[in-house]
Amino acid sequence: MRAAVFNGPVSVGVADRPDPVIQEPTDAIVRVVLACVCGSDLWYWRGESPHPVGSIGHEFVGVVEEVGAQVAGVAVGDFVIAPFIFSDMSCPHCLNGSTLSCVRGGNFGNGQIDGGQGEAVRVPLAGSTLVPVPGSGHSDQTLKSLLTLSDVMATGHHAAVSAAVKQGGTVAVVGDGAVGLCAVLAAKRLGAARIIALSRHPGRQKLALEFGATDIVDQRGDPATQAVLELTGGIGADAALECVGTAQSIATAGAIARPGSTVGIVGVPHGEVPFAATFFRNIGWKGGPAPARIYIPDLLADVLSGAINPGKVFDYETDLDHISDAYTAMDERRAIKSLIRVGS
Amino acid sequence: MRAAVFNGPVSVGVADRPDPVIQEPTDAIVRVVLACVCGSDLWYWRGESPHPVGSIGHEFVGVVEEVGAQVAGVAVGDFVIAPFIFSDMSCPHCLNGSTLSCVRGGNFGNGQIDGGQGEAVRVPLAGSTLVPVPGSGHSDQTLKSLLTLSDVMATGHHAAVSAAVKQGGTVAVVGDGAVGLCAVLAAKRLGAARIIALSRHPGRQKLALEFGATDIVDQRGDPATQAVLELTGGIGADAALECVGTAQSIATAGAIARPGSTVGIVGVPHGEVPFAATFFRNIGWKGGPAPARIYIPDLLADVLSGAINPGKVFDYETDLDHISDAYTAMDERRAIKSLIRVGS
Repeated sequence: MRAAVFNGPVSVGVADRPDPVIQEPTDAIVRVVLACVCGSDLWYWRGESPHPVGSIGHEFVGVVEEVGAQVAGVAVGDFVIAPFIFSDMSCPHCLNGSTLSCVRGGNFGNGQIDGGQGEAVRVPLAGSTLVPVPGSGHSDQTLKSLLTLSDVMATGHHAAVSAAVKQGGTVAVVGDGAVGLCAVLAAKRLGAARIIALSRHPGRQKLALEFGATDIVDQRGDPATQAVLELTGGIGADAALECVGTAQSIATAGAIARPGSTVGIVGVPHGEVPFAATFFRNIGWKGGPAPARIYIPDLLADVLSGAINPGKVFDYETDLDHISDAYTAMDERRAIKSLIRVGS
Repeated sequence: MRAAVFNGPVSVGVADRPDPVIQEPTDAIVRVVLACVCGSDLWYWRGESPHPVGSIGHEFVGVVEEVGAQVAGVAVGDFVIAPFIFSDMSCPHCLNGSTLSCVRGGNFGNGQIDGGQGEAVRVPLAGSTLVPVPGSGHSDQTLKSLLTLSDVMATGHHAAVSAAVKQGGTVAVVGDGAVGLCAVLAAKRLGAARIIALSRHPGRQKLALEFGATDIVDQRGDPATQAVLELTGGIGADAALECVGTAQSIATAGAIARPGSTVGIVGVPHGEVPFAATFFRNIGWKGGPAPARIYIPDLLADVLSGAINPGKVFDYETDLDHISDAYTAMDERRAIKSLIRVGS
């Protein structure tokens, strides 16, 4: 099959990889329909985080082509959403809500295991990992929204849940990438009354407002902190959502969070959390990679009902042959998030 | 009046300080009965944290001697507990549970404002700060337990609350100082079924067991982590409580916390929290100085009923004239916590 291969920084190309086959009776083979590029993939692209040479990509939706003998709950022909990690949903960590720590789990697109950016994927633990989508004939826009549940929308939701966003609360979102925008949407969905989006990019500001932001702060660093404090009467946000992962964005999130609140942090930290600096304001920090598999059923219902439309984060699309362009567009911030049309 | 004065590292003596007088109509003057030395005072003693020359100490109970014209709810003659900071309980931060961030609040014993380690204290915002103790004729042991609500027991409780200790859960407490021991007691009070105390000191192990610990781990660093993981079937603790504040104790707390849990951290951090290292296990970090004023009413009821007896942490006592010995005993770990008998 044809699939994206990470060769090293700024080099992701398409190559032939072995056609996936059932190796374990709990495997399924999924033919990929839509895939995309994650903000975390950009860290590899830029050489800021290591990634082995080989398969890449961990967000995809597609059609089940084959299932192993022990796969239950997922059948050939099902249109499925794959969370970005696979998990057994029965180990102590999965049962406690931490699918990333599943004792039998793992990551798609880690160099060895098939990535989402390819024609097909062998999905381990398929019965507990894949979520079939009910109904058929969904619109292209709906399919794009379903794809976001694989990671980016689940991650924005995780930021909001980790920060304990409450009905009627004030939320500030640091980061106007796809995760930050999804965090705005997640905060709105959870009933936040006021949502302050930190964004300097007109196109992203527009989408933030469409997703439910009530205020835009177009500054960075200390001026951004001052602006949020002014908007909140000097108090700070009830919930600050950190959706970038740089030292500056982490510091800003800590500074705009009101005393006693918890920063929901989902951007992979490339700077340290200034815990000692926020200790005396009783700021908590909680987050990490989202347990997407756990969030998908609820979010899926809201996508199908039309209540949320996170697929709007895709403002660039291409095909597998042009995968490199998909990365470049995001790296240069010409695209919020790149969609890859793989199959049908 | 006579009061302890911080002169610099390893130098706390008794000196004459001005008799406190009502300066604001919201002030009260409290004649101190019992005071004590806090673990955080030791950081100043050791020169590891700066402290201005002047008043010191922030834990005390005593009798109200005089009240300003606007003090309500506290009357002359009341026996009162002073939380370690004063607060108005009506600003947005107090109403949200963060008394340390009170817009009109401040710290006792900060060099200028009277400290608890002295004969008397001018208490600002007295009506909202002081908690009168109902009844009279309380035993000396009860008075010692009431004194702990000023800070150390409230702080142990804060660790447990911040880590969301639950009925039936497994808790691991890092630190066998007075805060750690109070955290054991707090975890027990909140219904934890299993409480693992990390302690290498036989006397402290004994008190930890008396306070509700079910297991003792007498190692440090990686061996301690391994021991806790073995005790928990490889899962880790549902709630890890960090009650020291050194880089090693913080790292241990993060390592023994189960994926998805939150470390309750109340030791003033003298090492950074390794957030990036725990990010992929979805570990949260939450804590800071306790909102003691908010916790005191509930804890007070349990002290008076005899349900908890945190005053057992005092295993050394002296008077104001020997304040230096009180510090030395704790610094040399001969004492868990030093009581200062000031008045009656």
